[in-house]
This record gives sequence, structure tokens and C-alpha cells, in this order.
Amino acid sequence: MQRFVNNPDDIVDETVRGFVRAHRDLVRIDPNNNRVVVSQFAPKQGRVGVVTGGGSGHEPAFIGYTGRNMVDAVAVGELFSSPTAKSFADAIRASNGGAGVVVLYGNYAGDNMNVKMAQKMVAKEGIEVLTVVANDDVCSAPASEMEKRRGVAGEIFMWKIGGAKAASGASLQEVRDTAQRAIDNCRSIGVGLGPCTLPAVGHPNFQIEPGKMEFGIGHHGEPGAFVADLRPANDVADEMVKVVLDDHNLPAGTEVAVLVSGLGATPINELYVLHDRIEQQIEARGLVVHKAYVGNYFTSLEMVGATLTVMALDEELKSLLAVETACPGF
Amino acid sequence: MQRFVNNPDDIVDETVRGFVRAHRDLVRIDPNNNRVVVSQFAPKQGRVGVVTGGGSGHEPAFIGYTGRNMVDAVAVGELFSSPTAKSFADAIRASNGGAGVVVLYGNYAGDNMNVKMAQKMVAKEGIEVLTVVANDDVCSAPASEMEKRRGVAGEIFMWKIGGAKAASGASLQEVRDTAQRAIDNCRSIGVGLGPCTLPAVGHPNFQIEPGKMEFGIGHHGEPGAFVADLRPANDVADEMVKVVLDDHNLPAGTEVAVLVSGLGATPINELYVLHDRIEQQIEARGLVVHKAYVGNYFTSLEMVGATLTVMALDEELKSLLAVETACPGF
Repeated sequence: MQRFVNNPDDIVDETVRGFVRAHRDLVRIDPNNNRVVVSQFAPKQGRVGVVTGGGSGHEPAFIGYTGRNMVDAVAVGELFSSPTAKSFADAIRASNGGAGVVVLYGNYAGDNMNVKMAQKMVAKEGIEVLTVVANDDVCSAPASEMEKRRGVAGEIFMWKIGGAKAASGASLQEVRDTAQRAIDNCRSIGVGLGPCTLPAVGHPNFQIEPGKMEFGIGHHGEPGAFVADLRPANDVADEMVKVVLDDHNLPAGTEVAVLVSGLGATPINELYVLHDRIEQQIEARGLVVHKAYVGNYFTSLEMVGATLTVMALDEELKSLLAVETACPGF
Repeated sequence: MQRFVNNPDDIVDETVRGFVRAHRDLVRIDPNNNRVVVSQFAPKQGRVGVVTGGGSGHEPAFIGYTGRNMVDAVAVGELFSSPTAKSFADAIRASNGGAGVVVLYGNYAGDNMNVKMAQKMVAKEGIEVLTVVANDDVCSAPASEMEKRRGVAGEIFMWKIGGAKAASGASLQEVRDTAQRAIDNCRSIGVGLGPCTLPAVGHPNFQIEPGKMEFGIGHHGEPGAFVADLRPANDVADEMVKVVLDDHNLPAGTEVAVLVSGLGATPINELYVLHDRIEQQIEARGLVVHKAYVGNYFTSLEMVGATLTVMALDEELKSLLAVETACPGF
């Protein structure tokens, strides 16, 4: 295993510590809980707090989206595991400026359970919490079972929009509804070309055979829509766009934001090769690419592969997307 | 080969095209040369132009550092190969605002030759060019042969400082001298845990055995100082800091900027694990970490590994480092 690790049990603590050292102008560790990263700009009195959380190994998600006009506090889980209810509760407390808190997180069983428990814990302290559960991963369930779909890189747009809306002084309900609209407007798909290894395990917990691709793979190697022969980048890009836009069904002329993220070990130039074709294909379908993001925005350790997220925009979402931010992930 | 490629011969064209599509608010392709990327803010009349160039496969270097208060134009080479003299000349022309142009590039035979030829080509057109040749890679030659050392991730600091100085309205000689001071103040080291593959070749052109690390590796897999058993991350970090600072020999109390970059396929959380120890070790030696950068800033396709760069700061370098920039790489 060719990796920079000490004791595998210490990876998350060391990651968080190194992260906060590197970005101490933007973030700090919660003094009560070393699995909570807090923005240096939080809490903001009279503003809605914005919280997320999830397993580690997806850096810069989730911690990297903490900062000014972004997420106020993040609950940090073990590698690929939900944070505890206590960590979610402490993140809610750390971001509470007296106007309520939204928790914007991904649709995974552990996160669902722990956010609900945290919500009960802080309710006793008088902190009102509303939630948005991201479910942008098209291949994780059919359109008829949207509520079963997992949250993936569309969460970055949800956080950006939610953070900007909260910074504007909007109410708790308004922030929640706008973040909900952001993720409702997102569709994502992942393509895996190679697996990843949890250092404590020492070998991949799933396999992708050489010459094959797992189309529709999840952020933890969850099986996708199908396994097929790996084809040229343009064919893969075409299929990604097709699956996302067939599900999205947007009227011609719709402006969209596009996010192409590497999964960890794909060379950055290949993300641009994919993006070149993706943007052509999106525009060929009559949509207008308003803004694009290409890079390692939401990874899965050293998985080889890439994800595509398309968010449909309206005037408000465009202006919230343009709000200036300061966070390590952007 | 688990990669997103079409015809391997088209990778660089597709990369540049996808890059410019994604970041068209910041960059454009030179209408005369599709291997030159130009800042949307260039040329700046009456200001010194800032140019760099190098082989592809190191994204976001080199093209990603084009933008406002950064590099004005970049000559783009094939994967791991120098750009042509014509591309360097066209980049110089595109960035020329009438006050001369600095070319800030890395010490490789092809780049040296092609920059010199470009300099002669544009001299006939009345464009004055001064150059800085980066040589921050400690293990590429002994201190007694500094002029043989290669340029690596310290170039990012050279571009940042040079770009900010040029934006301030400084003269050609002042911009050159300040960029030279920036790179003179940098020392870098790379550690490789796994090789990378040029898609046209189809197999790695060097090997790193499982359980081993290549300490002091170059950005194209050039052999390092030694091959050793891969040790825990903290031991690797300690050795990286030792080699860099023993060569640097900075007085206690010196403020430094630190850059920890992944080489392409190392999980981002492991860069933070390394950084956590690196920063501790740097401060244990009496230095002060003023600012840190951790991420995939200068890669080598999907090489597994990381680099450390330490730049000694003075008051002017600190203020130039703080100048606001807009470029895809930061």
C-alpha cells in the first residue's frame, strides 16, 4: 500500500489537525470536539448557521467548504463513515447565531440517523434545526424512488447556495428552501476506473477489472448502473451527459453550472479532456453553461474516476453562486 | 491503462480546450497559437508581461497559474516535454504591454534552449526579455552545483511573486530581480511512491517497487537521492523537512511559506497528514510558518507522492504573496 500514513487509526485526527494548521485563517477546531471544524467567521449573530458533515476520505469535502459565506461548521466522521450524533450536535451549537441552523447533508443511513438524533439533542437547548438531504446521484435509484438516491458532489452547490443565502440574512425557512432548491436542481453521475483502499483494511473493498469501467459508481464504490468496457474519453463523457440530462429533463435555453470532479487519482488534465466534451454535449442539447468547475472537489481517497454534476440555474441561484467566498475547497 | 483518453496524440489539445472552456472568464487561447494560453487581463499596457511555459501533465501547472496579478501567458508543451521556441515567443508577444517581458521557467534543457531562441526571435521585434530559471529541487544536484538543479513546485511562488510585482508597475529589472529572489528563497523536495504513465507509451517509464519510496524524485520520475523502505508518514515528513532546511540554512525566526503538493494520485487527506507533521517540524527548528498551501498544485499525471516547498519570506515577499489573484490554480 503506497500511502502516507502513520497508525491508520490516527488518520482522521491527523488530517483534521493538518487541515486546520494549513488554513487557520479560515477554520479552527471546536474546543469541545476535535471532530468538528468551525469557520473562523462563525457563529454570526442573527444569521442562520449552516452545518454539514460526513465521512472523511472525500477531501476537500466536507471540511474544505467551511469558511466565509460557506459552511459554518462541519462534523467529521471516520473514513467513509458518518460522524457521530454528538459531532453533528456540536457542529450545530458552534454555528448557532440565534436564528436557527440548517444541516445540509447527504442521503446515507448513518448520517440520516445521527442528524436526527443531533436535532433532538439541540432542540432541548432551544436551537431550531431544519435539514436538507442531498440526493443528486442519478444512478443510485430510479427517478420513481428519488428519496433513495444518495448525495454526492451536488452537495458542493447546495453548500455554496445555502451559505450565500444564510449570509444574506434570510430566515431559517428561506435558507432551507433555497438549499433544497439547489440540490433539487442538481443531477450527478460518477464513473469509476479503479478502486480505493481504506488504510486500516489494506486492500480495496471492491474491484474494477483493468479495461472495464463502473458506470454510475457511488462515492464509496457502491455499484453503479453497469460495468462495461472502458471506452474513449469522449464516449464516456457522452454517456455521462446523456444519463444526467435524460434524468434532469431541462427546457432548452436553461442555464446550468457544471462541476467535473476527480475521484482522487485521475490526472487533472484528463478532467479537462472530459470537460471539453461534456460542455460541448451539454450545449448541443440546447443548454447554456453559465459557470464550470473542474478539479478535485469531492474525492474518494485514491479512487480512479470522475463525477459530473449539472445544476439548473435561475436568477437567484446565479446571484448566490456569484457571492464571494473564502474556503479551502474553492 | 485506466484513464480517460481519446487518441493519446490529442490529449494536450483537448486539455487546453477543456481548460479554456472551463475558465473562460480568466483565460483564452492565443488566436495565433493553440499552444499558448493567455490571461483575459493581458496584455496590460505599460506593465511588465509575465510568461512561463513547460510540459503538460503537471496541471494545474503551468496553465492554471494564468490570470489576474499572476502569469499573463503560458507556452504549453506536449506531456512532459518543453514547449517550442515559437510557443514561448508567441506567449511573450501576447503578454507584451510595452514595458518588457519576464520569462519565469524551470531549469530543463529543452526549456532553456527554447526560451533562448524565443528571446532572440522577439528581440528583432523590439521586445526586451529577461529570464529567471527556477532551480528549487534540492536533490537534483548538490549545493555546489546549484545551477544544475531543476525547477519544481517553487515555481508557483516565483510566478505569484513575479505576477504581483509586475502588477504593481515595477520595472522589467525589478520584476526579474524580485522573481529571482523568490526562487532563490525556495527549496523543494519530492517523494515518489508510485510511477506514472504517458498514455502514448502505455506503461510507466520508471518503477517504484511496492514497499519502497523514491526520496528526492523529480517531476518526471527523475531518480532521487535514494530509494528506501517506505516508512510511516511522520518519518517521511521529518526527512523531507530535514533535507530542505539543511540545504536552506535559515536563521531562527525566519518566516516561511510552505507548499505541500500532491503528485497526482495521493489522497488529499494524506497531504494534510504530512502537512501536520511538516509544520510541527519546521516550527521546531525555530522558523515561523506564515502561510501554508496544501493540495494538488503541481502534479505529474497520476504519480503517487508529494512535494514540499519552503520559501523564506521578507516583508516585501509577504506583501506580494498577499496580493489578491484570480487564476484557476489557486
